[in-house]
Amino acid sequence: MTPVVSIIMGSTSDLPVMDKAAAFLNDMEVPFEINALSAHRTPEAVEEFSKNAKERGIKVIIAAAGMAAHLPGVIAASTTIPVIGVPIKSTLEGMDALLAIVQMPPGIPVATVGINGALNAAILAVQMIALSDKELELKLAAYKEGLKKKIVKANEELKEVKYQFKTN
Amino acid sequence: MTPVVSIIMGSTSDLPVMDKAAAFLNDMEVPFEINALSAHRTPEAVEEFSKNAKERGIKVIIAAAGMAAHLPGVIAASTTIPVIGVPIKSTLEGMDALLAIVQMPPGIPVATVGINGALNAAILAVQMIALSDKELELKLAAYKEGLKKKIVKANEELKEVKYQFKTN
Amino acid sequence: MTPVVSIIMGSTSDLPVMDKAAAFLNDMEVPFEINALSAHRTPEAVEEFSKNAKERGIKVIIAAAGMAAHLPGVIAASTTIPVIGVPIKSTLEGMDALLAIVQMPPGIPVATVGINGALNAAILAVQMIALSDKELELKLAAYKEGLKKKIVKANEELKEVKYQFKTN
Amino acid sequence: MTPVVSIIMGSTSDLPVMDKAAAFLNDMEVPFEINALSAHRTPEAVEEFSKNAKERGIKVIIAAAGMAAHLPGVIAASTTIPVIGVPIKSTLEGMDALLAIVQMPPGIPVATVGINGALNAAILAVQMIALSDKELELKLAAYKEGLKKKIVKANEELKEVKYQFKTN
Amino acid sequence: MTPVVSIIMGSTSDLPVMDKAAAFLNDMEVPFEINALSAHRTPEAVEEFSKNAKERGIKVIIAAAGMAAHLPGVIAASTTIPVIGVPIKSTLEGMDALLAIVQMPPGIPVATVGINGALNAAILAVQMIALSDKELELKLAAYKEGLKKKIVKANEELKEVKYQFKTN
Amino acid sequence: MTPVVSIIMGSTSDLPVMDKAAAFLNDMEVPFEINALSAHRTPEAVEEFSKNAKERGIKVIIAAAGMAAHLPGVIAASTTIPVIGVPIKSTLEGMDALLAIVQMPPGIPVATVGINGALNAAILAVQMIALSDKELELKLAAYKEGLKKKIVKANEELKEVKYQFKTN
Amino acid sequence: MTPVVSIIMGSTSDLPVMDKAAAFLNDMEVPFEINALSAHRTPEAVEEFSKNAKERGIKVIIAAAGMAAHLPGVIAASTTIPVIGVPIKSTLEGMDALLAIVQMPPGIPVATVGINGALNAAILAVQMIALSDKELELKLAAYKEGLKKKIVKANEELKEVKYQFKTN
Amino acid sequence: MTPVVSIIMGSTSDLPVMDKAAAFLNDMEVPFEINALSAHRTPEAVEEFSKNAKERGIKVIIAAAGMAAHLPGVIAASTTIPVIGVPIKSTLEGMDALLAIVQMPPGIPVATVGINGALNAAILAVQMIALSDKELELKLAAYKEGLKKKIVKANEELKEVKYQFKTN
Repeated sequence: MTPVVSIIMGSTSDLPVMDKAAAFLNDMEVPFEINALSAHRTPEAVEEFSKNAKERGIKVIIAAAGMAAHLPGVIAASTTIPVIGVPIKSTLEGMDALLAIVQMPPGIPVATVGINGALNAAILAVQMIALSDKELELKLAAYKEGLKKKIVKANEELKEVKYQFKTN
Repeated sequence: MTPVVSIIMGSTSDLPVMDKAAAFLNDMEVPFEINALSAHRTPEAVEEFSKNAKERGIKVIIAAAGMAAHLPGVIAASTTIPVIGVPIKSTLEGMDALLAIVQMPPGIPVATVGINGALNAAILAVQMIALSDKELELKLAAYKEGLKKKIVKANEELKEVKYQFKTN
Repeated sequence: MTPVVSIIMGSTSDLPVMDKAAAFLNDMEVPFEINALSAHRTPEAVEEFSKNAKERGIKVIIAAAGMAAHLPGVIAASTTIPVIGVPIKSTLEGMDALLAIVQMPPGIPVATVGINGALNAAILAVQMIALSDKELELKLAAYKEGLKKKIVKANEELKEVKYQFKTN
Repeated sequence: MTPVVSIIMGSTSDLPVMDKAAAFLNDMEVPFEINALSAHRTPEAVEEFSKNAKERGIKVIIAAAGMAAHLPGVIAASTTIPVIGVPIKSTLEGMDALLAIVQMPPGIPVATVGINGALNAAILAVQMIALSDKELELKLAAYKEGLKKKIVKANEELKEVKYQFKTN
Repeated sequence: MTPVVSIIMGSTSDLPVMDKAAAFLNDMEVPFEINALSAHRTPEAVEEFSKNAKERGIKVIIAAAGMAAHLPGVIAASTTIPVIGVPIKSTLEGMDALLAIVQMPPGIPVATVGINGALNAAILAVQMIALSDKELELKLAAYKEGLKKKIVKANEELKEVKYQFKTN
Repeated sequence: MTPVVSIIMGSTSDLPVMDKAAAFLNDMEVPFEINALSAHRTPEAVEEFSKNAKERGIKVIIAAAGMAAHLPGVIAASTTIPVIGVPIKSTLEGMDALLAIVQMPPGIPVATVGINGALNAAILAVQMIALSDKELELKLAAYKEGLKKKIVKANEELKEVKYQFKTN
Repeated sequence: MTPVVSIIMGSTSDLPVMDKAAAFLNDMEVPFEINALSAHRTPEAVEEFSKNAKERGIKVIIAAAGMAAHLPGVIAASTTIPVIGVPIKSTLEGMDALLAIVQMPPGIPVATVGINGALNAAILAVQMIALSDKELELKLAAYKEGLKKKIVKANEELKEVKYQFKTN
Repeated sequence: MTPVVSIIMGSTSDLPVMDKAAAFLNDMEVPFEINALSAHRTPEAVEEFSKNAKERGIKVIIAAAGMAAHLPGVIAASTTIPVIGVPIKSTLEGMDALLAIVQMPPGIPVATVGINGALNAAILAVQMIALSDKELELKLAAYKEGLKKKIVKANEELKEVKYQFKTN
């Protein structure tokens, strides 16, 4: 099936974090692809990818990178489809990646999620696609309802607990 | 005309920053509305707004707030349409607003742009809507081409300049 | 017994930190309840909780949350009883949670304690209730005296110690 | 009339910020006093003040200080009534004062508000006193209603505005 | 004369800062060119520039950019000649630009100077070129001697000064 | 022997860090004492200590504290002998303690050393005492010479090493 | 008269800040000298200065510098007399200078005061010298008493004031 | 063979980080030396080293240091050959070392790489030397090609992977 979401990582070492994005898209039955492309090591591949993504049927790109994280912004420069940026924590608690992704200059936005926020990136991608896909919209609403139930259930379990208080 | 983008500000004092978002949507001929709603002063109004937005035909919400900026996240909690967050600079160089918007917990993403990034928020909104609007997509491409021309022209003017060097 | 302090957590994963608040209230014999409610996953439950808290006899709310920690501020928006906010450390050393809780806009204060400061939140709650509860005030004074004795005793033990100096 | 709230500043230069706290207490008809006492220049006066405050009928102390802001914590060390800390911005965007006030060690809490958050400190003080003062509670509720109306009105005016968009 | 140093700015608004780099190269009689090229608005132009720079005789590239400053890293990705990065201060005191330039991943270095450090970038460029240009090396040594003399002279003037002390 | 340096810790948990200060004073044969006194739990003891220190023959005080570290500043407020502050790392990488110690208001200085810098605090204390103690000055000079020798020796060993290079 | 305190600045542009140090030493009748010496432009002069300072009768050195502030540490490396470091604010709110001065490696302490803390540096210098100068000790005590009186007087004036409250 | 690159560390404890720089130079067959010299413990050795480096045939110096990292700047002060600074992470996530190295005052640049960026420092050194060494330039180009191939291969392997999605 033709992928509509493309997950791009600056390095395969980001895979353990980005797994959650893939899992969510899988659950929502949204076709996706995963690639490792580096803004600095394979710049032509990134540019080619960015320019052709729309034509290939990609609707949203999720780009993850750490440190001086240029990948999301560089992709956004060469396409008009939305690019979601995921700052990966590797140094400075991920603050370097966050600032290098979110502080884009006027004209070229990157939709940034929290540090290591792979799941949220995938949800956001589905929200965008659901704008013109009624069925997906219903699945999203059901997912959201599920989140609520999980915390309601946790709360009920909480009431059963016998705390063993630590006295400081 | 029914608005498809809704710009929400935490305070009318954010208007001078958010103007640029309105101007861009206007240029792109995307119908929009602007409202001031506070997550803390008018919580019911925010919740009502969030729950009804999709039904009213809103496709994307742009929410701007400063300091402990809860507005974008609170709106995102009650809708499945994409919410774009704009951190407004008022204290701590805007770092408080940025973190309070971007660091959302798993399940409820906010698509965050840079500090005071009103224009980028509007472009991002248009990119999302253009996913299912061919005409808008062409306008976006033309806008992007325009950005390129502006800097190419600036560069040409640069070559004409006679620098008056400051010797330090 | 009707609880007068309500401890609310954004997630049950905050329980190991918030335990100390419960233990202190227990020691002081102040009736309390613990709930997990998420500003983002169960917004209506949070609003309902906030609006009814006072009527149910709650005098102080202790709200703990991490990352873009909206829970304390969102609760404070819908009640006039004091809300104490506890920033939970999970990312960025807890700095994101601290700023998202303490930097509230004018009109809606949250009484913020230090990162993971569950014990201090409980002491603060007791201080507020003791304003009109003479017996509790005496217990607080005794607790404070106890703190002093502990460090005086530690100091005495210190004098007995034979240091084994590390030479660098 | 005997003051029930005591506003303490580390320096008279903090007066322009703390004015708003005094104004709010005045509006709420809560008797208050203002003093300048320095944790570093007049330590005995601070200790004497702290120890006698409760006996003099003070119910809440609002303490404001900048830089290495020790005043709120030092006062909290010598009393069992609640101390609200206001970090004053003078260097490092107020981050030094915020951390020096909020990060209190276990046992001695300071109820911290945002940087320069004088108004919120006063509201918080009134919330605490209103726990046992029904009339004051009603005034607080009315104030909160007023905040809501102000933003609702602002929103209505917003709809009348003819924007003059800045084109970037 | 064929330029050997190329100064690239992300925006012509960086010119007032980068002037000092041009002035120093001018003083040292090192031929240079100045261009405005944006990593995000004119990505193909940047790539073409980067790939051809060496062939055109450029030996060192000085690239200046602000915010999520990708320009220096993107250029470094497509050339083997040294790239010097100048973080431009525009938001967050320039910290975003500094981190987005200096924290490059392994394999693609950018020689980063301080925030707004245009003069130092130019000196560094000259130091690199002087590695194989004896005459330029002598000029550099003379420049350094000049710096020393300036501060020695300032010190002598200092001794003449009659201070008018501010009493605090 | 009457102590001339007094090491004060806010908590006995700081002992593993402050050990190095004691060890150095021991090596230099400077008589010292160690006490645990809390600015917040035992404020009167701190004040009494501070006021009597000089009379008891103490020449320099080394005060260590973490978090909102008030101890060094509070001691400095009640004595005219030099107070050296050691920020202890426990939260926020020690940045909170550093700012709460070093950013003292005009009039009451604390001589601050680096985070967990116990050894440097002791060296600094010895430097101050050596101003009027010729013998101690000679020991200090010998210590410094020793530091130099250690690194010279390390360097020589370095030259013998056969590196086992990690190829990345 | 032979100077016993030496004030060194990295640049004559630091003079407006360091004035206050000179004024205090003047008030205390402690002989001092002021010099501008740069760790980077005149390294030999700095080394010569550092090595000879003690022999010339200097007892304490106050060294001020901004940005990557190496001057205090470099001086401390070549002398055994105490070096007080003053971080000068010029970029990044002075945080760069603070860290570059206070975070010295084990073995070579710099007694650091707050950002732009020239007055406190001078007081600290006098405290060190007063360790063996009874008369100076009395002057210091009188100065401290004066600080107290100033704030007591300010407090009394405060009581006279008719506030004109700003209603927010 | 006469070394052309000199790697200097502030402490032998930096060796595990700096290994990668040595390994790369080894791979590129660029003769190098490694020394441990401390700006603070062996200042004369540093100065002598800096002044003689060029004459000994050194073309580029790589200087690594942590905390208040003065070594690169101090070396740069006494030579006209390029100095590359490597901030070593030991405290404050390496932010102190980064700022103490990169924020050099006008006139004395240090070419700074990322925190613990030893490999990038070595690549940068080779880029500088390759400006006048055609053979080395070819090796560099081959290295860069290798980086590209590695990520292309990783990407291909990625396509083979069967993900085992973590469902959150």
